[in-house]
Amino acid sequence: MFTIDFEPVGRRGPCKPDQSLLESARELNVDLVSICGGTGTCGHCKVQIIAGRVTKRTLEEEGELSARELEQGFRLACQVYPLSDVKVHVPPESLTAPQRTQVEGLEVDVTPEPPVHAVDVTLTTPTLDSATPDDANLLSAVAQASSLHPSATDFHLQQTLSPRLRELNWSVSAAIRGEEVIAVAAPGTKWVGLAVDIGTTKIAAYLVEMFTGKTLAAKGLMNPQISYGEDLVTRIVAASKTPADSAKLQGLLVEALNQLASDLCAETGLDVETIVEAVVVGNTAIHHLFLGLPVRQLGFAPYVPATCAPVEIKAHQIGLKLAPGAYLYMLPNVAGYVGADHVAMLLATRTADFDKTTLAIDIGTNTEICLNHKGQMTSTSCASGPAFEGAHIKFGMRAAPGAIEHMRLENDRLEIQTIGAEAPVGVCGSGLLDVVAQLRLNGLLDRSGRMMEHPRIHKGTVAEFILAERPGQDPVTISQKDVRELQLAKGAIRAGIQALVAAVGLGEEDIEQVIIAGAFGTFIDVGSAVMIGMLPNLPLERFSQVGNAAGTGARLALISMSQRAKAAEIAARDGYIELARVPNFQRKFAEAMYL
Amino acid sequence: MFTIDFEPVGRRGPCKPDQSLLESARELNVDLVSICGGTGTCGHCKVQIIAGRVTKRTLEEEGELSARELEQGFRLACQVYPLSDVKVHVPPESLTAPQRTQVEGLEVDVTPEPPVHAVDVTLTTPTLDSATPDDANLLSAVAQASSLHPSATDFHLQQTLSPRLRELNWSVSAAIRGEEVIAVAAPGTKWVGLAVDIGTTKIAAYLVEMFTGKTLAAKGLMNPQISYGEDLVTRIVAASKTPADSAKLQGLLVEALNQLASDLCAETGLDVETIVEAVVVGNTAIHHLFLGLPVRQLGFAPYVPATCAPVEIKAHQIGLKLAPGAYLYMLPNVAGYVGADHVAMLLATRTADFDKTTLAIDIGTNTEICLNHKGQMTSTSCASGPAFEGAHIKFGMRAAPGAIEHMRLENDRLEIQTIGAEAPVGVCGSGLLDVVAQLRLNGLLDRSGRMMEHPRIHKGTVAEFILAERPGQDPVTISQKDVRELQLAKGAIRAGIQALVAAVGLGEEDIEQVIIAGAFGTFIDVGSAVMIGMLPNLPLERFSQVGNAAGTGARLALISMSQRAKAAEIAARDGYIELARVPNFQRKFAEAMYL
Repeated sequence: MFTIDFEPVGRRGPCKPDQSLLESARELNVDLVSICGGTGTCGHCKVQIIAGRVTKRTLEEEGELSARELEQGFRLACQVYPLSDVKVHVPPESLTAPQRTQVEGLEVDVTPEPPVHAVDVTLTTPTLDSATPDDANLLSAVAQASSLHPSATDFHLQQTLSPRLRELNWSVSAAIRGEEVIAVAAPGTKWVGLAVDIGTTKIAAYLVEMFTGKTLAAKGLMNPQISYGEDLVTRIVAASKTPADSAKLQGLLVEALNQLASDLCAETGLDVETIVEAVVVGNTAIHHLFLGLPVRQLGFAPYVPATCAPVEIKAHQIGLKLAPGAYLYMLPNVAGYVGADHVAMLLATRTADFDKTTLAIDIGTNTEICLNHKGQMTSTSCASGPAFEGAHIKFGMRAAPGAIEHMRLENDRLEIQTIGAEAPVGVCGSGLLDVVAQLRLNGLLDRSGRMMEHPRIHKGTVAEFILAERPGQDPVTISQKDVRELQLAKGAIRAGIQALVAAVGLGEEDIEQVIIAGAFGTFIDVGSAVMIGMLPNLPLERFSQVGNAAGTGARLALISMSQRAKAAEIAARDGYIELARVPNFQRKFAEAMYL
Repeated sequence: MFTIDFEPVGRRGPCKPDQSLLESARELNVDLVSICGGTGTCGHCKVQIIAGRVTKRTLEEEGELSARELEQGFRLACQVYPLSDVKVHVPPESLTAPQRTQVEGLEVDVTPEPPVHAVDVTLTTPTLDSATPDDANLLSAVAQASSLHPSATDFHLQQTLSPRLRELNWSVSAAIRGEEVIAVAAPGTKWVGLAVDIGTTKIAAYLVEMFTGKTLAAKGLMNPQISYGEDLVTRIVAASKTPADSAKLQGLLVEALNQLASDLCAETGLDVETIVEAVVVGNTAIHHLFLGLPVRQLGFAPYVPATCAPVEIKAHQIGLKLAPGAYLYMLPNVAGYVGADHVAMLLATRTADFDKTTLAIDIGTNTEICLNHKGQMTSTSCASGPAFEGAHIKFGMRAAPGAIEHMRLENDRLEIQTIGAEAPVGVCGSGLLDVVAQLRLNGLLDRSGRMMEHPRIHKGTVAEFILAERPGQDPVTISQKDVRELQLAKGAIRAGIQALVAAVGLGEEDIEQVIIAGAFGTFIDVGSAVMIGMLPNLPLERFSQVGNAAGTGARLALISMSQRAKAAEIAARDGYIELARVPNFQRKFAEAMYL
């Protein structure tokens, strides 16, 4: 056993000689970027060995790291095993957190019709004359004090009810859901709910008052499954190995949600046992991974979901620590690659209600697109890939401090804007979009995406545009290869939009409004996106950026039963188009890659 | 760490220096008798140190063991800690198993109306054109192939359904319960149920075909909670310490039931995943301990149950490993000391249906008694104590091989009958009853229970009647103190019967039939029981002994929904009398102790 020390994050702990630094990082909750899942092929888990002895360089490392990096002691954490105690420096670009997460979204503006009600009651103190069972005592007190007539006590609540009633001296607030009493607490308790949007990369959680719909607090967190691979297919493969792997991936999410619940409660001075309901949304794979449902069949055509129906279970069944009888409600999925988060987004954006032809789009590793034309809703999903999250981009990174998020080039005057105004360490998705748009605008890229001659463009093995020089370090660049990656991503999205519009007999010009949802969509420059042809060439006033609409949809479903019914109706109404089956899709995709 | 070796059972394993031999025995599943729960006061966990060094004798051991035993190296396992590797001999009387357990009972003679139905179906193989979610695919196949219309798939089943459907190549037998599909298996599967009667001391389990009601196999096992104390109050105290203790006591029972399920399935060549329903009965404390419900409040007046309602939960919620969506149904309790096993007994014996005045009685550590007089049912419970199980009786033991179970004394000619016809090692409950009856009959005891002069009666500090000489060992005896213990037990039962009969305005002579249920009741000599005044002095033909009626009641409820309804009706109809509130009960109890 050796000791490992990750700096500057300051995490220390034991490590075994047969444990890679990446594995040690995972154990110590140091969130290293790992896109390839530890095979040494993505080059993202870069760390610097500061002290101690480790195993020799691998061929993978020599392929992925520059000569200068190798010289400076940079290594790939997944390739390195300790030979003594070690001290490791983790550069910011290798850390998935801290990072900007998006919790803001649309207002929750519906009248609460919550699934849970509450009433303050006083029970009869039992005597030898009348030793009424504790559960019956509670049920009859509720029936006497209210118009609610629960017929049962949640079993999990029963397991703690007897001492609880005595501690509270027979006076309690009872939370009731349908036929069941699901929680008791001191009289006057403020009962709350938890709404969560689990993204492939980020989690956004909201603590909401059940009876007013007021959002009391919101918090974002990285999806901890990232250390098992940034893209869904890698995680599906990881979870399909053994039941223990599946349980591990599920456990990471459950733990994260318990942490978020506990943090949000700490922030608002509440007890997690006052959370009586949770609504969670995510894409279909995340939905399945979170619930411990099988995912292997999602990874291959025909991409069959285990279920698309709304799932309503006791939260504790999967290990969530909320009120004893709290329910977890998962919005319905539409298809293998159109999930509950898409349904939540459609619910929050009111896409289903518009008379004008509306395109709603949530851009990510998978981009989901829905077209509502005169009430006919059709959705599709396109594999836009993780380029916007920084994968396969040489200096790609997520929206963390130091990421170049915007860029302007005018008359050879280059301006960059980084997150947190810190020294540039890489480029995030919105930055990449701007860079390519600006290069094209200035004629540094041709229509096919080829880099032209220019003083800022270095023509080595691969042409590179220099974004920012850094003293003593390699400059931050965008390479010809990076441009190709972006073209793949944006081409997939545009071809998806075109196929969807064509499928209902329209042209892109018929789209009367475009709603862009999701964290990434919030931060992009729509002009740049139109410029490079990722989004249709429509007047800019037809576009709106709405933030984390999926999170808002989850909040709506949390506090309103009729919003849940509406979500079910949306999922049922929403037709799904499988792009793999669209005639000539590959050709259209290739065309859409032009700038 | 030392090594410990228990012989002749042949269990070996590691033991720590701070772990008593009793604790080591528990860990190695050597079922040592421990009535006091390890405090050194019951003297039942006797073992012989054969090799190795151990800690010195305690005062407790000097009080509990005879000089001869001490000389022979006998120790109390709860008082001894190892100082080296040790080898320990466990005499048969210190082992709770093997032991006669009662699984036989009344016939199950009702028409099955099972809660579960099954249908063989073939699903549609999904394609890109029609990638129906797996659960929806199954539900629609069931709806097409049968008149059943389940609307959901059990969540736990969903967690394995997708690979299962593919393994079975889309052809399955689906088990359906109400609105839910709860299991799938190969077409033509024989679906079964598990009925269990958990006694304070013994567990009886039955594997039953769901659609015919046929009992395929039966098996008995000791209640493993015994190592935490033989009586319920000791276990209630143990379980009330911390949630971990409660979970430990629950876990022991759950594990035992999983073992029984697995053994019964192995015996019949079935898979435990074909067990689609379980019905479990037990007294109220056992019911609560098994479900992990709070018991502390059961231990003090007014003895309030956490619940008396029927409990219906998913079996896996408490860790039972049956079919994925199998339900566990617990029959209702009546009061803190009249539980679901009593209800099951009343159901099986048809006590509620008789026009003649009927007394039904289940004798044990707690004895439950029910009187049905013209349809008015009244029950009570009396603390008869663990004397029948061998506790507080010098040579007391349970019905294990070598136990004297019957005795006759005629003209100074003494005949004893032991279980398994083995050399006598002690006296079980039915033997104790016979001994006292025979001594009284022969004038060796007076009405007050005092031992007279007789060649077989040794008058030391305490008078003792010699039952069996054993070469090289202390003889097996019944002492004056043992007689007093029996008088306490039988007095409690008789006083309970009298109070119950009086409460409905009758005399004992009005009882037209007496049904004696339970394992102990099956093995007693009714004549002896009447002779010593444990049972009312009625013509012997009014008595019947029916075996494990509680187990039969559980089997009835397992396969018939109308039997469940009937059990609920019995529990609701059954009035409860608290003996602590009967005027002058203590005086009546004292009177009932006379022989």
